[in-house]
Amino acid sequence: MIACLWARAASRKQRAGRESNREQLTAAGNGSAGPMSKKTLARPARGARGGTRRRHLTVLFTCVGRRVELIQAFRGSAERLDIDLTVVGADKSELAPALHLCDRRAVTPTVLDPGYVSALVEVVRSEGADLLIPLIDHELPVLSQARQRFEESGCLALISDPGVVSTCRDKIATYRHLKKHGIDTPRTWLLEAFAKRKSRSFPCFMKPRRGSASFGNYVIHDDEELHTLGRRVPEPIVQELVAGFEHTLDVYTGLDGIPRCVVPRRRLEVRWGEVSKGQVAKDPRLMEIGRRVAQSLPGCRGVITIQCIMSARGRIRVIEINPRFGGGAPLSILAGADLPGWIMRERLGEKPRIRMDGYTDGIRMLRFDQSVFLDRRGELL
Amino acid sequence: MIACLWARAASRKQRAGRESNREQLTAAGNGSAGPMSKKTLARPARGARGGTRRRHLTVLFTCVGRRVELIQAFRGSAERLDIDLTVVGADKSELAPALHLCDRRAVTPTVLDPGYVSALVEVVRSEGADLLIPLIDHELPVLSQARQRFEESGCLALISDPGVVSTCRDKIATYRHLKKHGIDTPRTWLLEAFAKRKSRSFPCFMKPRRGSASFGNYVIHDDEELHTLGRRVPEPIVQELVAGFEHTLDVYTGLDGIPRCVVPRRRLEVRWGEVSKGQVAKDPRLMEIGRRVAQSLPGCRGVITIQCIMSARGRIRVIEINPRFGGGAPLSILAGADLPGWIMRERLGEKPRIRMDGYTDGIRMLRFDQSVFLDRRGELL
Repeated sequence: MIACLWARAASRKQRAGRESNREQLTAAGNGSAGPMSKKTLARPARGARGGTRRRHLTVLFTCVGRRVELIQAFRGSAERLDIDLTVVGADKSELAPALHLCDRRAVTPTVLDPGYVSALVEVVRSEGADLLIPLIDHELPVLSQARQRFEESGCLALISDPGVVSTCRDKIATYRHLKKHGIDTPRTWLLEAFAKRKSRSFPCFMKPRRGSASFGNYVIHDDEELHTLGRRVPEPIVQELVAGFEHTLDVYTGLDGIPRCVVPRRRLEVRWGEVSKGQVAKDPRLMEIGRRVAQSLPGCRGVITIQCIMSARGRIRVIEINPRFGGGAPLSILAGADLPGWIMRERLGEKPRIRMDGYTDGIRMLRFDQSVFLDRRGELL
Repeated sequence: MIACLWARAASRKQRAGRESNREQLTAAGNGSAGPMSKKTLARPARGARGGTRRRHLTVLFTCVGRRVELIQAFRGSAERLDIDLTVVGADKSELAPALHLCDRRAVTPTVLDPGYVSALVEVVRSEGADLLIPLIDHELPVLSQARQRFEESGCLALISDPGVVSTCRDKIATYRHLKKHGIDTPRTWLLEAFAKRKSRSFPCFMKPRRGSASFGNYVIHDDEELHTLGRRVPEPIVQELVAGFEHTLDVYTGLDGIPRCVVPRRRLEVRWGEVSKGQVAKDPRLMEIGRRVAQSLPGCRGVITIQCIMSARGRIRVIEINPRFGGGAPLSILAGADLPGWIMRERLGEKPRIRMDGYTDGIRMLRFDQSVFLDRRGELL
């Protein structure tokens, strides 16, 4: 299947969405948009109740940004599963391209705004969302704390427990957690601790303690660079520089946190911290690491994305854990790991059969820039 | 028009291409691929000869990389103009996504390989290419020198004269050229010259003298950073830091070097040195700068891409000139500046009527990652 097929489906659905209801939600001021949903999570989502009737789901993606392919993947899975899917996108900016390929869209305050959660709860209510899927690291702490508020409106928030999120957001905490559980990881220090060490070995790697998408990451060659670049990085940490091939592991942990499928993707090319060329690498050693990391973090939910480096000799070291859909997840999905389908079926109260290695090895993903165009009034062209 | 329409056209054409002829050219070893074309540039390309017959064109894009949208734009223009277009892509890597959306593809040596031009000449001959369009900076010097070799095979190489290319490739030469022609530009020094100045003012901007796509660009805040980061940048130059909105100007200079259309695009967001959100800004002051820069460089050919910064008070300073299609050109094309159509018609011996401002103001482009997927054998999925 080629990406363009997805694009077509998205476009059709999106046009239909425009015809039926094109108004834009402004999350803050929409209190009268509809009665509060009476659904609770004790019952499965709407569609599941009807026996052989067609199932319906409304999925809200938050901080949807540029995740067009992920939405396309959800649409593709829904079509195969005969689920009537409505996609709602939320973002702080109307210029988020993915917003314009959703059926419905909401412009929210920024993640740091104290009204962020309330704005999303309002969207959930007015849209009758069954499922909320967050897409960037920065929003995970606040949303994982607020899960209960979404559930009261009948919406399952696909977010790991606050403990998991706080361990993963802080690279020092991640390092300590992995060490404690006997999972190989590069040695990691706070910059001050590293600078005080007698035996500092260069080159090393510097990055922000709570960073994202490789912003402020530097290879450091000597004390001079350590000092000068350390001033440019917020809360800098230093990590042992590890040689090898970077891999990302997509781990499906569903609604109960049990790892059921691990897809390793080798990073063939990275641009701006996100994979731009990748290849599925069905290696049992990598899959086992993914399973172990997820098991070490009870309270996972949905998809967990793990970064690791594999040396030429096969030593695997975990460098980062992100408890959310990674940017390259469309590759795992295309290869046959039906992450969107499994999530939607679980939300509908079904129990999908999932094989740990139920996907095709060796599939490659090559990315390019595609655009949506808006006219002066913000209408899709 | 939405991007997906283009994608569909590309996909249809591409499938047709696969059915009729899917073999991959290996540029080096294909000497017997066909008799040398007898076409010369004294005659227009094939299609133009037939009077009312349908016109044919074969266009070779070199270093085609991720330029899928540009190819889609050429296909769209060809369809509107009833030109039967064959797109040939060349790249050093089979993993260039755009290759897989071309009708025919060639894997060539790298640009730095002494056999690069010969390999491309071979592709031109075996494919009967009428037009060669280079897409990255690094290949411009060698291809502009070799233009005659392509023309001997009946292929027009859409590249500016070597003098234009060498001025634009070297940011010190660009600075001197602009100053000489009275075009406003930030002050620029070699790092050594800047470091020796008594009055060094910070912050300033550092970048490689012959760089591309913002690799190795840094804002420098003090002498310490100047020294430390200066060691990380190849042939560093220092530029006065200028505040304002970045704009890119797409200037169409056709086959005779006369600027006929200037489309300013405001950069709303940049990722990895390439625009990811942009907006057409039909500002007569910016258009006039574009016209003046192109006029100051006789020997331009095709599309010239100019970067400049406009301050809040409207002062415009040119910071870079790239004599090739910029990454954001699809926005200008979508807005109505039919760069591909004009080029193809000129190649067919026609004289398109071009209005300097014949495009729609305010159109926005929002980019996201889209993928092609290959199976283990390298076949498109």
